[in-house]
Amino acid sequence: MGKGIFITFEGIDGCGKSTQLKMTMDWLKEMGHDLIQIREPGGTVVGEKIRNILLDKKNDSMTSLAELLLYEAARAQITEEVIRPALSEGKVVVSDRFFDSTYAYQGCARGLGEELVNTLNHIATNNLEPDITICLDISPMDALKRRQARGEAEDRLEALGTSFQEKVREGYLQLASKDSRVKIIDASSTPDEIQAQIREYILQKLG
Amino acid sequence: MGKGIFITFEGIDGCGKSTQLKMTMDWLKEMGHDLIQIREPGGTVVGEKIRNILLDKKNDSMTSLAELLLYEAARAQITEEVIRPALSEGKVVVSDRFFDSTYAYQGCARGLGEELVNTLNHIATNNLEPDITICLDISPMDALKRRQARGEAEDRLEALGTSFQEKVREGYLQLASKDSRVKIIDASSTPDEIQAQIREYILQKLG
Repeated sequence: MGKGIFITFEGIDGCGKSTQLKMTMDWLKEMGHDLIQIREPGGTVVGEKIRNILLDKKNDSMTSLAELLLYEAARAQITEEVIRPALSEGKVVVSDRFFDSTYAYQGCARGLGEELVNTLNHIATNNLEPDITICLDISPMDALKRRQARGEAEDRLEALGTSFQEKVREGYLQLASKDSRVKIIDASSTPDEIQAQIREYILQKLG
Repeated sequence: MGKGIFITFEGIDGCGKSTQLKMTMDWLKEMGHDLIQIREPGGTVVGEKIRNILLDKKNDSMTSLAELLLYEAARAQITEEVIRPALSEGKVVVSDRFFDSTYAYQGCARGLGEELVNTLNHIATNNLEPDITICLDISPMDALKRRQARGEAEDRLEALGTSFQEKVREGYLQLASKDSRVKIIDASSTPDEIQAQIREYILQKLG
């Protein structure tokens, strides 16, 4: 790989990822970095079509394994079409979710298991890993209140409720305990306080 | 698995699969079998949406790996939602393509390799294999003439031309040389002659 930096934001729905990602992007831009922002699933023509299938509540007959393979298909596309070229041009790639979401949602919460998810994550990315992963940690009840306060409609996965989100959260915490790449940040404080911690961590990682 | 029979039809585009599949279905029905017909990719609500992405010529930026994972997603869905329940009810499931297509098209013609495709085929089907596989063998030029005679519009994969179809054909022949499950039948003779060979082979396999 080239000299770019690959940063991913993770966490349960409503953890504040989008806000913190935007604040981090603004800061990195001020520092003079050449940035691109992506999201998963999606971020390519093919990937956005896959995203539509994944998030459509009408597709409630979708099996957990088909869901997992759809995420990996979108991931394979964006990795080869967008992420690798950008990194080799020295850009900073900032992604709203990446394969740790698959670990937490499909591997842990859906119960498909760590080994299967790791195998497929490895295949889809051809072994590309993020350099820095920020995981915003919040309780599912607090996250739900935030989403309701924003008046957001639920998508197919969000509609599974707080007990599902609790399993996702446990998945992230379990992952962070095993992989030092994943940095857990408490997302219950104010946006500015959270952002300060993110900046401090990124500066430390960039040396 | 239950006592059903899983029969798949394979071959390059224009080999006469659809005609022979229909003739075989009619014959099995007359024999009193309880039948269901499926097609890959597709055959489920989720799978048909995946099929639309795969066959849309506008998606020419799709990477080979994303394509492979989309086929496997549709396969995982139809295997769990349709094929396994039907087989456990004792039905005969007849499919227009199954995972041998992935071996020939993505593994061989696209060059993704046998090992990767076998791994994913194994994951998507949770180790389900067809009982009988009929592969209709024809030269890509003859197949093209047939498709043109029918006035068919090309889809995204067919538009890749006869040199691509030649690689697919070689993939099927290579597979049949290694796996006795796959029966190659010469598809250059008349529909009735081909059908007679298919019936003879199925009767032999069913004992």
